[in-house]
Amino acid sequence: MIQRKNEHWFSMLFIWRGSVLPQLLPRLLMLFLISAGIVFLKGTFFHFKIPLSPAPFTLFGIALALFLGFRNNASYDRFWEARKLWGALLNDTRSLARQAITFSGYHRDGKEVDTFLKYLIAFTYALKHQLRGTDATEDLRERLDPVLAKRLSTAIYKPIILMKEMGIWVQQARENGKIDTILQRAFDENLNKLSDIVGGCERIASTPIPYTYHILLHRTVYIYCFLLPFGFVDSLSWLTPFIVIFIAYTFVALEAIADEIEEPFGTAPNDLALNAMTEMIETTLLEMGGKHIPDYGKKNADILD
Amino acid sequence: MIQRKNEHWFSMLFIWRGSVLPQLLPRLLMLFLISAGIVFLKGTFFHFKIPLSPAPFTLFGIALALFLGFRNNASYDRFWEARKLWGALLNDTRSLARQAITFSGYHRDGKEVDTFLKYLIAFTYALKHQLRGTDATEDLRERLDPVLAKRLSTAIYKPIILMKEMGIWVQQARENGKIDTILQRAFDENLNKLSDIVGGCERIASTPIPYTYHILLHRTVYIYCFLLPFGFVDSLSWLTPFIVIFIAYTFVALEAIADEIEEPFGTAPNDLALNAMTEMIETTLLEMGGKHIPDYGKKNADILD
Amino acid sequence: MIQRKNEHWFSMLFIWRGSVLPQLLPRLLMLFLISAGIVFLKGTFFHFKIPLSPAPFTLFGIALALFLGFRNNASYDRFWEARKLWGALLNDTRSLARQAITFSGYHRDGKEVDTFLKYLIAFTYALKHQLRGTDATEDLRERLDPVLAKRLSTAIYKPIILMKEMGIWVQQARENGKIDTILQRAFDENLNKLSDIVGGCERIASTPIPYTYHILLHRTVYIYCFLLPFGFVDSLSWLTPFIVIFIAYTFVALEAIADEIEEPFGTAPNDLALNAMTEMIETTLLEMGGKHIPDYGKKNADILD
Amino acid sequence: MIQRKNEHWFSMLFIWRGSVLPQLLPRLLMLFLISAGIVFLKGTFFHFKIPLSPAPFTLFGIALALFLGFRNNASYDRFWEARKLWGALLNDTRSLARQAITFSGYHRDGKEVDTFLKYLIAFTYALKHQLRGTDATEDLRERLDPVLAKRLSTAIYKPIILMKEMGIWVQQARENGKIDTILQRAFDENLNKLSDIVGGCERIASTPIPYTYHILLHRTVYIYCFLLPFGFVDSLSWLTPFIVIFIAYTFVALEAIADEIEEPFGTAPNDLALNAMTEMIETTLLEMGGKHIPDYGKKNADILD
Amino acid sequence: MIQRKNEHWFSMLFIWRGSVLPQLLPRLLMLFLISAGIVFLKGTFFHFKIPLSPAPFTLFGIALALFLGFRNNASYDRFWEARKLWGALLNDTRSLARQAITFSGYHRDGKEVDTFLKYLIAFTYALKHQLRGTDATEDLRERLDPVLAKRLSTAIYKPIILMKEMGIWVQQARENGKIDTILQRAFDENLNKLSDIVGGCERIASTPIPYTYHILLHRTVYIYCFLLPFGFVDSLSWLTPFIVIFIAYTFVALEAIADEIEEPFGTAPNDLALNAMTEMIETTLLEMGGKHIPDYGKKNADILD
Repeated sequence: MIQRKNEHWFSMLFIWRGSVLPQLLPRLLMLFLISAGIVFLKGTFFHFKIPLSPAPFTLFGIALALFLGFRNNASYDRFWEARKLWGALLNDTRSLARQAITFSGYHRDGKEVDTFLKYLIAFTYALKHQLRGTDATEDLRERLDPVLAKRLSTAIYKPIILMKEMGIWVQQARENGKIDTILQRAFDENLNKLSDIVGGCERIASTPIPYTYHILLHRTVYIYCFLLPFGFVDSLSWLTPFIVIFIAYTFVALEAIADEIEEPFGTAPNDLALNAMTEMIETTLLEMGGKHIPDYGKKNADILD
Repeated sequence: MIQRKNEHWFSMLFIWRGSVLPQLLPRLLMLFLISAGIVFLKGTFFHFKIPLSPAPFTLFGIALALFLGFRNNASYDRFWEARKLWGALLNDTRSLARQAITFSGYHRDGKEVDTFLKYLIAFTYALKHQLRGTDATEDLRERLDPVLAKRLSTAIYKPIILMKEMGIWVQQARENGKIDTILQRAFDENLNKLSDIVGGCERIASTPIPYTYHILLHRTVYIYCFLLPFGFVDSLSWLTPFIVIFIAYTFVALEAIADEIEEPFGTAPNDLALNAMTEMIETTLLEMGGKHIPDYGKKNADILD
Repeated sequence: MIQRKNEHWFSMLFIWRGSVLPQLLPRLLMLFLISAGIVFLKGTFFHFKIPLSPAPFTLFGIALALFLGFRNNASYDRFWEARKLWGALLNDTRSLARQAITFSGYHRDGKEVDTFLKYLIAFTYALKHQLRGTDATEDLRERLDPVLAKRLSTAIYKPIILMKEMGIWVQQARENGKIDTILQRAFDENLNKLSDIVGGCERIASTPIPYTYHILLHRTVYIYCFLLPFGFVDSLSWLTPFIVIFIAYTFVALEAIADEIEEPFGTAPNDLALNAMTEMIETTLLEMGGKHIPDYGKKNADILD
Repeated sequence: MIQRKNEHWFSMLFIWRGSVLPQLLPRLLMLFLISAGIVFLKGTFFHFKIPLSPAPFTLFGIALALFLGFRNNASYDRFWEARKLWGALLNDTRSLARQAITFSGYHRDGKEVDTFLKYLIAFTYALKHQLRGTDATEDLRERLDPVLAKRLSTAIYKPIILMKEMGIWVQQARENGKIDTILQRAFDENLNKLSDIVGGCERIASTPIPYTYHILLHRTVYIYCFLLPFGFVDSLSWLTPFIVIFIAYTFVALEAIADEIEEPFGTAPNDLALNAMTEMIETTLLEMGGKHIPDYGKKNADILD
Repeated sequence: MIQRKNEHWFSMLFIWRGSVLPQLLPRLLMLFLISAGIVFLKGTFFHFKIPLSPAPFTLFGIALALFLGFRNNASYDRFWEARKLWGALLNDTRSLARQAITFSGYHRDGKEVDTFLKYLIAFTYALKHQLRGTDATEDLRERLDPVLAKRLSTAIYKPIILMKEMGIWVQQARENGKIDTILQRAFDENLNKLSDIVGGCERIASTPIPYTYHILLHRTVYIYCFLLPFGFVDSLSWLTPFIVIFIAYTFVALEAIADEIEEPFGTAPNDLALNAMTEMIETTLLEMGGKHIPDYGKKNADILD
């Protein structure tokens, strides 16, 4: 995620980083050259004049607006729902931590509460790694006792196994007479919510927008942009390539952005800052438990990953 | 569901599978031939010139944009709600499994917990078969004891009867003194949620978008496409058929996609991968219970059904 | 509700039933005749040429698109929310039935459970009749004991009085020592949900979209359609009436559909199939209770009411 | 709220009441006169021809569609959310009444249950008066005992103080051994929901759509309408004033409607019928309690206030 | 937040405060001068005529409408969600106060209840300061006992630490035998909701709309406005600068508004009135507790901050 600074409106016109412009440059350049060629030939190939006028483009435009608008909204909804799920993860781990600290019956700074907080933190790391498809072993080993860390290393759904461990922790608290079944249910309901969060994230990660939309939108955008210079060569003459790449830039860039934020758990510049959020959850849980907060090292000031 | 690969933007223009193009080809071809004929006759039939210009098409366009946009959003909402319901099914069966394992009072690896997990898995299969209108007998017989499987074979609403069995299982746990009524309610609330999920899926499966929308949209799209060549024959001349089928493709394809994902429980290429999701739920529940996970056989790498 | 069949794309262009076309035919015919008259007079009345061109219609179009889009979305949202409420009714009555059967403490096939299931079924019928403004007496007399049926016949809010009876049933189960207050609350929460469903349906039935929207939209659509032939008579000549009724059909039909589904509890062809849903709820509750399922008689295969 | 009747589509074109037309008439008349003047001068002032054509209006149109669409949706959402909150108020007071009647432990027709029902009804009236900024004293004095009514007369947030009284009533029921803490919580959760409803209504009443939107939209609409005659005087000549006021009517009326329903708790013709809803809640609660239902006097058949 | 007054529709055209016009004036003036220069040169630089016509602007317009509409909706959703969260904060603190007063077992006017109310009020102030990035020390010292205020001064997440204190307060009430675990859970659930509110606010404050959208939209708007005079100089001649700044005003102003309300916790004129809301929460909680309500001093009548 790119940290937003308050740029002046004028300098913001020339920002490079965070924009999708760099990755689109080759395509736009290609389009510029094609347009220039068409202008040079005055839209004529081998004495055949391509009889295209601006008129049909407003009809294409209807389809394009529909597709891009839909695609963009669907992608942003996925991005924002993913963010909400991670926000709910923060809220829910804090609630579970508060329950473990204030009414588990164990001493507030005791070993058992400590174990539970570690489960919560490890759960957060495990979920992050599952969603990004990276290896959780290192992070789990640092935060859990070796036996459990080992057992988790072969599990397919690590966060779920950790939730089962939390369920066992709560059950043992009851068997030790620390809580009754009423407070056990208070834990249980927050564990249910954790289950919803994990499943929600998995849903977004595993089910993209139907592929057929990608293809249809992609084709419409690119054929549209390729036909544009033919439609404008007569009225705009030498200005055609400039106007065409400007129009093309807006459409192609919107498609590229939608593509990037559609999978919000990735590591592209505009994806969710899962690392920063994981560390933030660890920080607030450790602060609640009165523990020492580790230094996560110097960060890049502009981009959170 | 089609697995998305990261195609190059250029090769993506020529993808065949997953696109709705193949099924639309005959109609588009027909339209191409009609357009070519109109160009050949210069829009004149028996010396009557059809006096159509591009102007009215922008007015049609308003109606089309409204209808297609509405239809597409409504279809995608149904698709995504169906996906959310199956996501909730995953979360809820996991929560119920965690409850059965950690606080039912039965031994974690005991026969009773095993029975409950089997109920959950069978419930998932029964729901899948009900939604797809296929025969659940085989899948239920593999996962349940023969008496219950037999009884289910004649039931109209199989998942609901299985939920009643789960309710009886919980009641017996209480009568055996394994849980008190407080923990019984913890199960009960998750069973309520299961009931909501079943009903939500049945709602989507049984109530399509009002049929009158289909008719109105269908007529508007096809009459619009048929009139297009008359409107453009004078300005675009021989280019008309190409432009017409490109515009027609975008509209007709969007209608076809909306039609396909409107019934998300079907087996079309862009429908939900109920088989894969059912197997995933079985996998995670068996992993939680420490059971052996079956091998579901080799899958097609590109399409999940 | 019209059952959707998979029509061929071509024959779907000529479907009559389910379409709103029949009821709109007189208006469209009138418009056709007016248009033909205008073409005949070449847009001139008593030597005054009406100086209207297609240009202002794109400006009208903006307003029209706004109004129709808003109106249509608002109507469909009402339709779909009403459907969701009836879906929730199914889920909630199933949950209450499961609770009565599995943990009320009464025998699963006993008289008391039977009474509770009858309350639930009668509640569903009473709600249907209240929403449709029809007479519930017959249906309630068949399903309830005569004293209660008689008392209900004079009640204003019958479903609410039935819910009070269910509350008394639960209270008596507790007073008889069959359940404790914890399980009583489990019933109570589902009764709260029933209360939300009743109120939600009453809200949709009693509060239409503000009337002023109807008037504004209605005027805009009809004045627009009446002006259309003047705008196109010069450019489209004898084709004008055909194009005008096609454009008018799309706008007028969309308004008519929105009007029909805005009150989803009615009996128009595209309204909700309350009868079919009521019978389905009765069927699933009787199946859960192991009771005999009545035969509801032969249905029209195409339309559910 | 205006009661909708099924008007014939033709007579609906000339309806006066419920339309916002009367209040807009002076502005539209002024615009008509300006337009007529511009037509008379052929768009020329002191030999300077105003060189405006229809072309820029489609660009303005984009902005207008954006603003009006957004404004209208935001206003309608507020209207509908307010209606939902009052629907939830109905559901929740019914649920609390059912709880007081069926499981408070007091006799169903006893004095205590009666008091609680009175609290609920007075609460509804107090909320209505707070939202409308009217004086609740009279209505509260009729429904509460004099001491409490007097104490409430100086309270800032009357409904909240009444909720506190309900909380005390529940606590006393427990101290009297009528209910245990489990049923106390059942009341408590519904009181939490009441709290959400009060706060939700206060939110809508106290936070309008940001003022800057009003200004921007207002300016755009009126400058647009004032410029319209200049753009069309050349092409539409003497028809200009008629077309201009028709276009202006649609835009100005939509802004006026959005303005009216944005504050749904007022007493304008299209606002929510808080009086009718309050009386309906009183009716259903009294019916549940088996009490006599007062006659609220003859109502205007067309408008609910 | 600007208090809305009912301005006359005519004087509303000339309102200065609350409008974003002042901050945009330099840019619009610059654009006006550029346009005037272009008109003076008749769109010709060094004998090169810039061959731009109005036609391509309708194509740009599609992209602009998409971007502005999306951006504006996303910003307003953030604004309104933030308002809902603060509304929920009001509801939830009232519910917790009612619980502490009516069923905590402590005396209604006792010291312990007083302490809990102070926690709630301090929590609200702490959240406000965290979201605005201001110093909470002063406000917390006035409302809390010195030891706790001191401890909080170094905490990173002050509201969370205060919630932990509330959890300890509830636990102590149980250990003192004032409440049982059932009522403890009633508090606990409302504390869970508080946790959701804090996290929701943090989410909005820390995750802006992806930066790449800002850049893309910003560029499109400004390049569009700069190109406008070239497109209209031929048809509108000397009127061009006036029309151009009017069109530019609507687009640029909408972008500026979206920018302002996107971060709703700031102190810009259209941001949320956190100060007023905090004082309102303090007022209602003190009124519930029967405490004296402080005078917050004279307010600016027009703007709430």
